[in-house]
Amino acid sequence: MATPLLNCDMGESFGNWSIGLDADVMPYVDCANIACGYHASDPHVMRRTVALASQHGVRIGAHPGYPDLMGFGRRSMACSPAEVEDMMLYQVGALAGICQAEGVTLSYIKPHGAMYNDMAANLELLEGAMRAVRAYDADLPLMVMATADPEPHRQLAKKMGITLWFETFADRAYEATGHLVSRRLAGAVHHDQATIVAQAVALAKGEALTARDGSALHLPCDTLCVHGDNPESVAAVRAIRDAFTALESA
Amino acid sequence: MATPLLNCDMGESFGNWSIGLDADVMPYVDCANIACGYHASDPHVMRRTVALASQHGVRIGAHPGYPDLMGFGRRSMACSPAEVEDMMLYQVGALAGICQAEGVTLSYIKPHGAMYNDMAANLELLEGAMRAVRAYDADLPLMVMATADPEPHRQLAKKMGITLWFETFADRAYEATGHLVSRRLAGAVHHDQATIVAQAVALAKGEALTARDGSALHLPCDTLCVHGDNPESVAAVRAIRDAFTALESA
Amino acid sequence: MATPLLNCDMGESFGNWSIGLDADVMPYVDCANIACGYHASDPHVMRRTVALASQHGVRIGAHPGYPDLMGFGRRSMACSPAEVEDMMLYQVGALAGICQAEGVTLSYIKPHGAMYNDMAANLELLEGAMRAVRAYDADLPLMVMATADPEPHRQLAKKMGITLWFETFADRAYEATGHLVSRRLAGAVHHDQATIVAQAVALAKGEALTARDGSALHLPCDTLCVHGDNPESVAAVRAIRDAFTALESA
Amino acid sequence: MATPLLNCDMGESFGNWSIGLDADVMPYVDCANIACGYHASDPHVMRRTVALASQHGVRIGAHPGYPDLMGFGRRSMACSPAEVEDMMLYQVGALAGICQAEGVTLSYIKPHGAMYNDMAANLELLEGAMRAVRAYDADLPLMVMATADPEPHRQLAKKMGITLWFETFADRAYEATGHLVSRRLAGAVHHDQATIVAQAVALAKGEALTARDGSALHLPCDTLCVHGDNPESVAAVRAIRDAFTALESA
Repeated sequence: MATPLLNCDMGESFGNWSIGLDADVMPYVDCANIACGYHASDPHVMRRTVALASQHGVRIGAHPGYPDLMGFGRRSMACSPAEVEDMMLYQVGALAGICQAEGVTLSYIKPHGAMYNDMAANLELLEGAMRAVRAYDADLPLMVMATADPEPHRQLAKKMGITLWFETFADRAYEATGHLVSRRLAGAVHHDQATIVAQAVALAKGEALTARDGSALHLPCDTLCVHGDNPESVAAVRAIRDAFTALESA
Repeated sequence: MATPLLNCDMGESFGNWSIGLDADVMPYVDCANIACGYHASDPHVMRRTVALASQHGVRIGAHPGYPDLMGFGRRSMACSPAEVEDMMLYQVGALAGICQAEGVTLSYIKPHGAMYNDMAANLELLEGAMRAVRAYDADLPLMVMATADPEPHRQLAKKMGITLWFETFADRAYEATGHLVSRRLAGAVHHDQATIVAQAVALAKGEALTARDGSALHLPCDTLCVHGDNPESVAAVRAIRDAFTALESA
Repeated sequence: MATPLLNCDMGESFGNWSIGLDADVMPYVDCANIACGYHASDPHVMRRTVALASQHGVRIGAHPGYPDLMGFGRRSMACSPAEVEDMMLYQVGALAGICQAEGVTLSYIKPHGAMYNDMAANLELLEGAMRAVRAYDADLPLMVMATADPEPHRQLAKKMGITLWFETFADRAYEATGHLVSRRLAGAVHHDQATIVAQAVALAKGEALTARDGSALHLPCDTLCVHGDNPESVAAVRAIRDAFTALESA
Repeated sequence: MATPLLNCDMGESFGNWSIGLDADVMPYVDCANIACGYHASDPHVMRRTVALASQHGVRIGAHPGYPDLMGFGRRSMACSPAEVEDMMLYQVGALAGICQAEGVTLSYIKPHGAMYNDMAANLELLEGAMRAVRAYDADLPLMVMATADPEPHRQLAKKMGITLWFETFADRAYEATGHLVSRRLAGAVHHDQATIVAQAVALAKGEALTARDGSALHLPCDTLCVHGDNPESVAAVRAIRDAFTALESA
């Protein structure tokens, strides 16, 4: 049984400021989403993070965001599809340049934060992002949020000639639509490791989750987002990895 | 007779701010040094400028600078050689990503402003820049300032396995060392078109210039820097191009 | 008869990039909205612009915007009311510091671009801005867009204990609601000077404008926005000034 | 006996990135040097830090730096004296605006990092900084590095009509000139708390230190720099405070 790829945001330090337990979590993931300097990171951090991923044989993904260091790319910005397209090319290229210097290559693209969310909500922005991928390298998968109705995104990707990787979350509660429950609501984030692992395994097996309204929710799942922010989240990643290893050998 | 390549800084607009007569000067140059977002430009301007160069068959060079938009990359910053190396990789990669989307490739690298000057004065920084070139693509020439004694730079380039393109200026007076006369001194900048063209032709023919102290100055000249800032400088570029065309057909 | 104050965006150059005919338009306006470094300008440009306004006895207003130089503050950003509040304090203080060094004082605050528009559309953001004004100096008027129904804004200002200056435009067509006709529609912007002056005079006299749907539109008008972007707009400002002088002496 | 003021850099977090144990160290210091957004911090962090200092009755100083978030203001930049002057006014004003909103006032100015060091080495830059202080508020003391020969700085301050506060370090070894021993040399930084406290007490009593070459070094000491980076440095601050309290009551 093929389990979803575990992907994790990495390289989100900036200059004198350090965050994330990149070295601790790198051994347990398949894919490192590496920040590209617009919402976090700098050339030095990028190079160090690419080298770390390379040492562990982890696939490297560009993690472009809005140009908003102060807001960590989490504030939606009213960029046009053409602006998003060019911002993605810039950031993807910058990371690819550093990869080239380290003798490795990019494997995929995952937009960050508000850019990721805006693309999920706005097909014109998503098409802008897809134009960037197609123009740069149509063989690079684009990671997008899985929802209960992935068909519009699938069809757009088919039209544009690119590949999507649908992403799900093990530590977040879902609405019936497949959107994440707002963090402002109780129960939005799972903190219990057993719950997180159980949700990861259900997603890996293609089983339905239970949405907030009690309905069954089926989500496509090419990849699962995990976190390396603190020791608890790293422990959860190890537990998911162990569960997936058991599934694969079952 | 092969004449030096004419190179010109391009794509130095930024967001709502426009400078440079790029479209006017592009038809007359061989090489467009395209800003990469650290001292000027943004992804939109970069893409438009790459497309313009591509339309005219002009070679595209990355023009990385210090991260100082407010100072236009003209203020020296005490960056370490490793910082310069990584900053160059980031910016070169970003422009290369946009080139890839436009179906063209980078042809060379020319550092900008204070970074260019600091590299001319500091072999450790120059070696940092050369490490970036070697790691990224050792076949990309690195443009550096020609001086009366280019041997140290040639030897370092040989050791690092990269190619240098020595650059001269047609509109600037020179010291006996081959350094440019400070703009604070009278006569530092030539404004008369005939003088500019005569200096360009002398450099193309390998003839000596007369330095400020009256001595004869021989400079290697693979490429000549020209400017597209205003109608006068564009006219000078056309005149140099005409003179070079005459030389080539002589 | 008291005519509306003429206000104009000023000091929107940045580093090596210059825009706006500030010196040409300054003699004809009452109020200079001076950019504060987040969407445009830098400390040098701010000081020069404050000195210019001071020479002409023009009132100085802080013109804070979103932190988006690349987008000139014209892209909406999903900032919280508390973020807007603190961003305004930072920028207002920065300009006030430069004013203090030049021996002048701030007279009002006018948010810029997308921040201005977002506040017009979102009472929570407007309240955030008002908290900034109240905390900094409740005697500084806050400039806001006049609409057909200014009561909600008036009541909020009264609750917060601050003063509003309602602003109108002489060169823009209006919807019946008092919102500006989108620039994507034909006729959104008046280019004919006679039309611009006539609209300015009507607003000064408190006469109704004709909205796009043909209805009569009454707008409160404490101040009128004018532009110094190019010679045509400067000529229009002079013409409005002449018309206002005639009104005042009538 | 009056002991030197204990000053500490504060508010150096930025957006999503946190550093410094500000809340832990604030109770033990006299003066908080608060970053102003150029080398670190943002409006939200500035406001929170001003409020924290205010709660503890700690004097607030503006801590302006070079515009280099990526380099944390630690890289020298070749800014002109006039650029330094205006950058200081901008940042001092920004912090003063936030202070005004919190009902407190600025007490002094301490330049940060490379700007501080460059001013110590270059009288023209120092004079630029002094022009900023004089123009903004000549009653605000300017903190500068104490050296073995403070007379040139004293005379310049007298000419400019401003007050200097000479600053020393308890955890750094000194050269005979009064400059700090380079961090590249062994013994440059004291890690032992007893050594740190002993140096602080010697400085407070006006006793000579022993320079690296063994000579006696007398330094003026209006204020002593302490650190809140980690639990060890906070413990050292508490120990210095206790020692100073004992001195004052002796």
